[in-house]
Amino acid sequence: MDLENIQISDEGLDVSKKYQLKPEIAEVVIRESDKIFGGIGGFVITSSDNIMAPNAGIDKSNARKGKVILYPKDPYLVAEQLRRKIFLKMSIHVGVILVDSRLMPARIGTSGVAIACAGIEPVLDMRSKKDLDGNPLKVTFQAVVDNLATIANHKMGEGAESKPFAIVRNSGATLTDRKIDSSEMAIDPDQCVYVRGLSNPPKKQ
Amino acid sequence: MDLENIQISDEGLDVSKKYQLKPEIAEVVIRESDKIFGGIGGFVITSSDNIMAPNAGIDKSNARKGKVILYPKDPYLVAEQLRRKIFLKMSIHVGVILVDSRLMPARIGTSGVAIACAGIEPVLDMRSKKDLDGNPLKVTFQAVVDNLATIANHKMGEGAESKPFAIVRNSGATLTDRKIDSSEMAIDPDQCVYVRGLSNPPKKQ
Repeated sequence: MDLENIQISDEGLDVSKKYQLKPEIAEVVIRESDKIFGGIGGFVITSSDNIMAPNAGIDKSNARKGKVILYPKDPYLVAEQLRRKIFLKMSIHVGVILVDSRLMPARIGTSGVAIACAGIEPVLDMRSKKDLDGNPLKVTFQAVVDNLATIANHKMGEGAESKPFAIVRNSGATLTDRKIDSSEMAIDPDQCVYVRGLSNPPKKQ
Repeated sequence: MDLENIQISDEGLDVSKKYQLKPEIAEVVIRESDKIFGGIGGFVITSSDNIMAPNAGIDKSNARKGKVILYPKDPYLVAEQLRRKIFLKMSIHVGVILVDSRLMPARIGTSGVAIACAGIEPVLDMRSKKDLDGNPLKVTFQAVVDNLATIANHKMGEGAESKPFAIVRNSGATLTDRKIDSSEMAIDPDQCVYVRGLSNPPKKQ
């Protein structure tokens, strides 16, 4: 996307000023986000398509000067189209995950996140399972596609490696033909232990 | 650790009341944490040994009734001892990562985090590298041991699978003999885009 001819809204100017973002970047972030939670100089924490990320996942560093790279408009459709193409060309059933890098709170370095997926169960539901002592499990889901996204991102690299995809074998994931929705991988931020916890400190500071 | 005979401090009572934790759990969380950032009913977000986690990583669900499982006292020493034992018994150089499951902000399901490691470079420094267009990289580290922890955790499972370890081959990670410090994987929470961003909303709410 070209930054040059973007019309900046009042909200764009506000966000730009408060968080020291270029007005054009602030405007694109607002258009791409469902919600802005807050920010610091140069970054806002946003939620878009049920993914919490700095600056709505907008990528300046991989783009040519004056341009930014946005997430695809309908990433689940893109993933499904890829899955069908692979089946038609190679007659194999695969799960497809669109991957971006993300940061973990208070940790150095990038892990991965699934922007969208097709043909693969996104989370493993363990609610009926027991732990070793026979107690019901408290942690009840495994973030299957995020975990596969993380190891794929790890292998693809961040720089000029030019590895646009990675093949994960023997992942243990379950393939499926049903349509996957972004809400299946996401918690409402109002329910999230980090979002609510970090905005509710023990004493006023 | 046995919860029965724990002396509850005033701070323990405060935290217990504010965040609806059992007083004994609140007390152990305080003792195990370097800082409490905030919380919601039943959980506080803490930092301990440079790992941000709900309730200081204390595990009730895998413990027998009346007990909790804490992180090892000196996890880097434990990792180093394991590495040496493996070398002495099998004459192979390996990197050792102690793994716990963790949650990502606003996502469903568990990924992994490295509690400690030995014999392996914890992050990949890409600050001197360029991206495809020759621009300096903005994302400059890859969270190598957290990413390997995530895929190991994915394979080990959360329930009664009884898989206490996973072997990762061809990880691309760099082995090393130098001592690793927990600060190499962690950002000071005061510098963290999530911690600062989430506590600095666009409008007073």
